[in-house]
Amino acid sequence: MRVPYSDLHDALRRALETTGLAPERADLSARLIADASRDGVYSHGLNLAPRLIQMMRAGVVDADALPERTAAAGAIERWDGRRGVGNLNAHHSMAIAIELARTHGIGCVALANTNHWMRGGTYGWQAADAGVIGLCWTNTLPNLPPWGAADPRIGNNPIVVAVPRRRGHVVLDMALSQFSYGALAGYRSRGEPLPVVGGFDTRGELTRDPAAIEASRRPLPIGFWKGSALSIVLDMVAAILSDGRATHQIAVDPGTETALSQVFIAIDAGSLSAAGAADRIVDAIVESLKSSSDDGERVRYPGERTLATREENLANGVPVDPSHWRFVLEVGQMS
Amino acid sequence: MRVPYSDLHDALRRALETTGLAPERADLSARLIADASRDGVYSHGLNLAPRLIQMMRAGVVDADALPERTAAAGAIERWDGRRGVGNLNAHHSMAIAIELARTHGIGCVALANTNHWMRGGTYGWQAADAGVIGLCWTNTLPNLPPWGAADPRIGNNPIVVAVPRRRGHVVLDMALSQFSYGALAGYRSRGEPLPVVGGFDTRGELTRDPAAIEASRRPLPIGFWKGSALSIVLDMVAAILSDGRATHQIAVDPGTETALSQVFIAIDAGSLSAAGAADRIVDAIVESLKSSSDDGERVRYPGERTLATREENLANGVPVDPSHWRFVLEVGQMS
Repeated sequence: MRVPYSDLHDALRRALETTGLAPERADLSARLIADASRDGVYSHGLNLAPRLIQMMRAGVVDADALPERTAAAGAIERWDGRRGVGNLNAHHSMAIAIELARTHGIGCVALANTNHWMRGGTYGWQAADAGVIGLCWTNTLPNLPPWGAADPRIGNNPIVVAVPRRRGHVVLDMALSQFSYGALAGYRSRGEPLPVVGGFDTRGELTRDPAAIEASRRPLPIGFWKGSALSIVLDMVAAILSDGRATHQIAVDPGTETALSQVFIAIDAGSLSAAGAADRIVDAIVESLKSSSDDGERVRYPGERTLATREENLANGVPVDPSHWRFVLEVGQMS
Repeated sequence: MRVPYSDLHDALRRALETTGLAPERADLSARLIADASRDGVYSHGLNLAPRLIQMMRAGVVDADALPERTAAAGAIERWDGRRGVGNLNAHHSMAIAIELARTHGIGCVALANTNHWMRGGTYGWQAADAGVIGLCWTNTLPNLPPWGAADPRIGNNPIVVAVPRRRGHVVLDMALSQFSYGALAGYRSRGEPLPVVGGFDTRGELTRDPAAIEASRRPLPIGFWKGSALSIVLDMVAAILSDGRATHQIAVDPGTETALSQVFIAIDAGSLSAAGAADRIVDAIVESLKSSSDDGERVRYPGERTLATREENLANGVPVDPSHWRFVLEVGQMS
């Protein structure tokens, strides 16, 4: 089922306003959610809206809370998200980091007490659209065992790296788990094995069976011990800089996951280089990748498919899950 | 074979001075190399010294070249390494980034035209010893196929994240390949399969056979497609910020690998927090990891083994490869 982008944006705006967000904030939050679906990131667009609405209703997410600056030193600032709406807090933080980068060449905002930022790539595209390099990450609830253990103690801590480019930004948006639980469920429901090992089964053996990993709750970090280590240090840096919670302090239930810590860094390469210099470098790298031998046509740069998907979804409507779409429409009709 | 740390440092200093480095620079470069071996990172300590000396002799590494600042904007600076000694250029860059962080809260140095930084963790420990968070990475020659291709087009681009801590810094130092060629050779010579898949064989199948991967030249990035994407964006950011070479422009032969691009970021959390706040956060994270169930005693934080190894090697002597040790001693006796 497809709906026009403007209908999706409107329905989300109405639903968020009805749930308690001030009009301008509802409009921005709805746009960010609609943009994720428009760009093909369905798992982190409309599909997450019902949970956001439920968390606002439950008071886990405070609809009225605005982020507050709690410390600053030159090019780095610390903000308290006050358990407000995650995508609005994150968007605000990257906006401040971009401002700081305009002044200082580089800017960093650490955000404590925030909520799920939904699509992480949002803030990468935001930076790239502003013409700056963006680097950000979030911690999460404990959803992966650290290497050497069986119980979830570390987060899949998604990281985003964005590089602005006239012919299409390069935006990496990836969690540190090899497969999300959503991806595991997808493979399971299609009856497919994972393309590569994705976790341990209950006997502690590596497996490509998605159901076995769902049963063991032992999905793999990327790179086995390496992603485990990366998750640990990103959690430390986010908690230290924001003076916020670390993964081990965050509730394990996704329905009450709150008080996350995030870091947003923006770097203005334009403060060092002539206009067009960065584009020439990125274009040459892309060209080199595209000329790879063998399955060369399959080599893509991060974010490459986004613009084509965006164009298609703007032309033909944005694919929506009917039940989530109905939920949002119904919420928007309450008063 | 073990030699006292001071003998190792002295021998390296003499060898580097004989090869053309000014006395103070030879002393620092030698210390950084000796420290790597002292800390147990043998592959990137003494073992790399003969190659450095040969590259200086061949003129690939310019012993006299000092890095030069080519652009600056507030908290970010661009330096030209002028194809000088890699570990001295990198150490200098992190030192500048730390200074910038003292002034601006965060500092960034991008370095072009440099050479192999040897042990990447060096610059993480440097930042952490100065009490700041360190984040740095380098591009490399093309040594990994991007996901979807068979020929090496991307680098294993090591990244380092360091968190200072009174009870022992947390320092992640990892390449984006699952196994280095050195590690593959080690497993092969011991007749062991890799613990997890490490690359493709010549038929394009994933394998744990180290020799098959050496034959195909198709080792895996961490996380399969994910590490491939991360390598690509880190290369882009390093080349853009430094206005230096990207991986596709770097010679494929390790003996002539030069003109690398690197990024050094330092963040002074002490500019935002009271003394001791960060330590409490990191200690609590470490404690949570240590209390993991099952194989709990095997869970380690990044860098955990370093201090114990350092202590042991300072007490009992630093293990050295006899042939590399002899080479360095002989070079030091020339005049």
